[in-house]
Amino acid sequence: MPDHALEPIFHPRGIALVGVPSSDGVPGAGGGSSGFLSSLIEQGFGEKGGLYPVNPKATEIRGLKCYPTLLDTPDPVDHVISLIPARAVPTLVDQAIQKKVRSIHFFTAGFSETGDPEMAKMEQEVIGKLKAAGIRAVGPNCMGLYVPSERIAFMNGFPKESGNVMMISQSGANAGDVVHGLGRRGVRFSKVVSFGNGIDIRAHDLFDYAAADPETEVITAYIEGVQDGRKMFEAVKAAARVKPVILLKGGLTSAGARAAHSHTGSLAGSIDIFEALCRQTGAMRAETMDDLHDLVVAVNTSVKRVRGRGVALIVGGGGFAVLSSDAIATAGLEVPPTPDETKRLLNEFIPVAGTSVNNPIDTNMGTPDVALKTLRIVAAAPTNDVVIAAPNIGQRAVQGAPDPDTEERERQIREQIKTSIDTYKQTQDETGIPIVALLRDRSARPEMLDLFQQEAYAAGIAAYPTVARAARAIALMLKWRERREGLPAVL
Amino acid sequence: MPDHALEPIFHPRGIALVGVPSSDGVPGAGGGSSGFLSSLIEQGFGEKGGLYPVNPKATEIRGLKCYPTLLDTPDPVDHVISLIPARAVPTLVDQAIQKKVRSIHFFTAGFSETGDPEMAKMEQEVIGKLKAAGIRAVGPNCMGLYVPSERIAFMNGFPKESGNVMMISQSGANAGDVVHGLGRRGVRFSKVVSFGNGIDIRAHDLFDYAAADPETEVITAYIEGVQDGRKMFEAVKAAARVKPVILLKGGLTSAGARAAHSHTGSLAGSIDIFEALCRQTGAMRAETMDDLHDLVVAVNTSVKRVRGRGVALIVGGGGFAVLSSDAIATAGLEVPPTPDETKRLLNEFIPVAGTSVNNPIDTNMGTPDVALKTLRIVAAAPTNDVVIAAPNIGQRAVQGAPDPDTEERERQIREQIKTSIDTYKQTQDETGIPIVALLRDRSARPEMLDLFQQEAYAAGIAAYPTVARAARAIALMLKWRERREGLPAVL
Repeated sequence: MPDHALEPIFHPRGIALVGVPSSDGVPGAGGGSSGFLSSLIEQGFGEKGGLYPVNPKATEIRGLKCYPTLLDTPDPVDHVISLIPARAVPTLVDQAIQKKVRSIHFFTAGFSETGDPEMAKMEQEVIGKLKAAGIRAVGPNCMGLYVPSERIAFMNGFPKESGNVMMISQSGANAGDVVHGLGRRGVRFSKVVSFGNGIDIRAHDLFDYAAADPETEVITAYIEGVQDGRKMFEAVKAAARVKPVILLKGGLTSAGARAAHSHTGSLAGSIDIFEALCRQTGAMRAETMDDLHDLVVAVNTSVKRVRGRGVALIVGGGGFAVLSSDAIATAGLEVPPTPDETKRLLNEFIPVAGTSVNNPIDTNMGTPDVALKTLRIVAAAPTNDVVIAAPNIGQRAVQGAPDPDTEERERQIREQIKTSIDTYKQTQDETGIPIVALLRDRSARPEMLDLFQQEAYAAGIAAYPTVARAARAIALMLKWRERREGLPAVL
Repeated sequence: MPDHALEPIFHPRGIALVGVPSSDGVPGAGGGSSGFLSSLIEQGFGEKGGLYPVNPKATEIRGLKCYPTLLDTPDPVDHVISLIPARAVPTLVDQAIQKKVRSIHFFTAGFSETGDPEMAKMEQEVIGKLKAAGIRAVGPNCMGLYVPSERIAFMNGFPKESGNVMMISQSGANAGDVVHGLGRRGVRFSKVVSFGNGIDIRAHDLFDYAAADPETEVITAYIEGVQDGRKMFEAVKAAARVKPVILLKGGLTSAGARAAHSHTGSLAGSIDIFEALCRQTGAMRAETMDDLHDLVVAVNTSVKRVRGRGVALIVGGGGFAVLSSDAIATAGLEVPPTPDETKRLLNEFIPVAGTSVNNPIDTNMGTPDVALKTLRIVAAAPTNDVVIAAPNIGQRAVQGAPDPDTEERERQIREQIKTSIDTYKQTQDETGIPIVALLRDRSARPEMLDLFQQEAYAAGIAAYPTVARAARAIALMLKWRERREGLPAVL
């Protein structure tokens, strides 16, 4: 276990869920627990460490023995998830001190963020007691920890495998969107911490931890308000010197700032200040949640190596090529005309009529041989710094047309996906030019698109749902690299 | 049949497909025919009129008798789809004149758009002969006609039902994206014409037709180049005086213009010129294909009645609410703070802790009763001109948790969708404030999201996949309405 002050919170030997309702994890049951217990069971924490529901009104929840109070649970309990109302927290804190736990995660909301002076006073007392006892607090008003290597998760459906991305989030919902959304694209996480109002552990502590954590290679964060501006600046700067850091700030408009104040009590920052923070620390700025997702994919694939603005696009459909070119240009990149020699090579097997080799190259790359030949020739053209190409991902059966049986068709599609990715990877390895997959196959089934992007990601190939998003990710990557000139390379 | 010169091309009694390959409609077979025959079979044209494959190398294709030449087909054949190479077209034209057909659709590419002077000469000769014989031509280099009432389609999977939207497209691929994409959202079409290089029938003819067509209430178009600027301007202006017209122009950047020139031989126009065209004619300008889709949904739902910029957002998840507020403000709309009286009414059943009633209103509207109460109160607030609310669309079973059987669950979800839409519609009817559905339920199955948006659309409720797109559609609608002041109302 690395020697960082926060390390122990990520390795609890036992977890008690205090106030967990008996309806935990039942679809539509509500009750505010959001399925913490069922998520921990799904991950398999119970097979690894002790998992103890605490609820005086139940004897068993989800097949686990339920305890009347925290003090009744077996030892050791290192981590407590507090699901009780705020007014009951002081009693729980006393019990936690007696129980010698290491950390408490307060899902509980209703502390000082409500603006109620009585609750603010209670919050101060709680902080004082926890500090004195050496117990770390996550939250309040947050979803807490996702640590796949330790089988800890805060929502159902989170991947069980670990990865290299650590996310620091001031919103549990947004952290969930990132894990689910990027999970579908093949991304895996070292740790995700939803830290809410941060009465103890704050964003800067987590950046400090992430920079030191050997399991973390990429850091991303969703932030609403900064409690300690100077510490935050220094922590982000130190982290961004050693690892790529991708930041999204919520509340940059006045409407967003008002919402952030309601959500986490955060005060507004301006776009200019945040932009300056990113520039001065060497962090990448995501302007939207889509940006954050797309940049995480970019830094973990060949997009990180893109050397310039020349984009070659290989995609069938003339009108689609036109709108795509507009989208690439709007993102600040170029669609350079194909050099004559490259055109000549392409016209050896691409017919003149009905298609264009001018860039965009209007072809469907019908067979693997044609795909490999096309990609190699296009990637080798001196004008092109990156190639965006749309793979075929298994057409659905046409109604009424002859079609092989489903199982055989499924096998063929999986084979087609594997071959496409091999082709992309081979071209990329040979030429050093990043190949990016565009997932626009209208006839593909959603689960096959997911399979494609996961397998592609594992092979170092980025996949994006639209040309606009691919182009934007490439443009943001180039902008960030230009800005970092003089700083150590972290990719 | 209305008395418009183009009307007959939409009502052929028999269709011959000349040069259709025997692999038509076989997945992955290629061959360039794109499944015209299988699409017509799928729509059921063969049950309505004569459907005649012509190919000297086959005796039967897809179960239909195949004829060696056009002259061998039974009478009447009113419409010919030409799938043969350009050099064979003059012979086909002679046969078509002899056969007394009314129209020819040239899927065939390789005419003057190749820049080959010989092909340009041939094109002129073909035009002269067709004109003299009174035969109308669609294309070349296009996908032709989709007329669901006549069971004519050019791609598989097009809806069989008719609707009120006519699309005019200079790209077959983009027309296909519109029909498939908007079809999934519940939109149906009167006619779609992919007219390609327009050697005879051009955009202005089609606008003229669409303005007069009683089946068409909404007109949308994808245009790359304008062949007759003055005629086009007048046709769009006349159409936009009587129906909403939504225009997307490809090739507005220099990269896009180069691609458009390769695609349809079109010359560039500038953003300023196109913007001026839209302003002066009273048309709506879509800047992207997403805009076009979202505006078609807007003009056919209550979004068309939105009266101002005040947006109320009802959605669970504090961080999501923050980013959504930023997105709404970025689109040029407002997220007005909830008036005190409205807050008081909401706080009667929404707890203070952990949620906000400040707008965005951070609640999941757990039960239908709560949803109706919440929507009514929020829509009635004087600050709000439109409400965006995220419905629950059937949570998926949580792994390991107790769950009703699949059939029962499916029934419950369908019921939930129906109830949500009824609630939205009831609130909208009572208050006159448009309610817009945000499809962000991460746990919903894709087919249930589709079901929701189709049923919602049928009830006059718009559904958008993101807050950013909902806000943009609303903002574009307001902008268009402000610009049209002084023009007749068409919505």
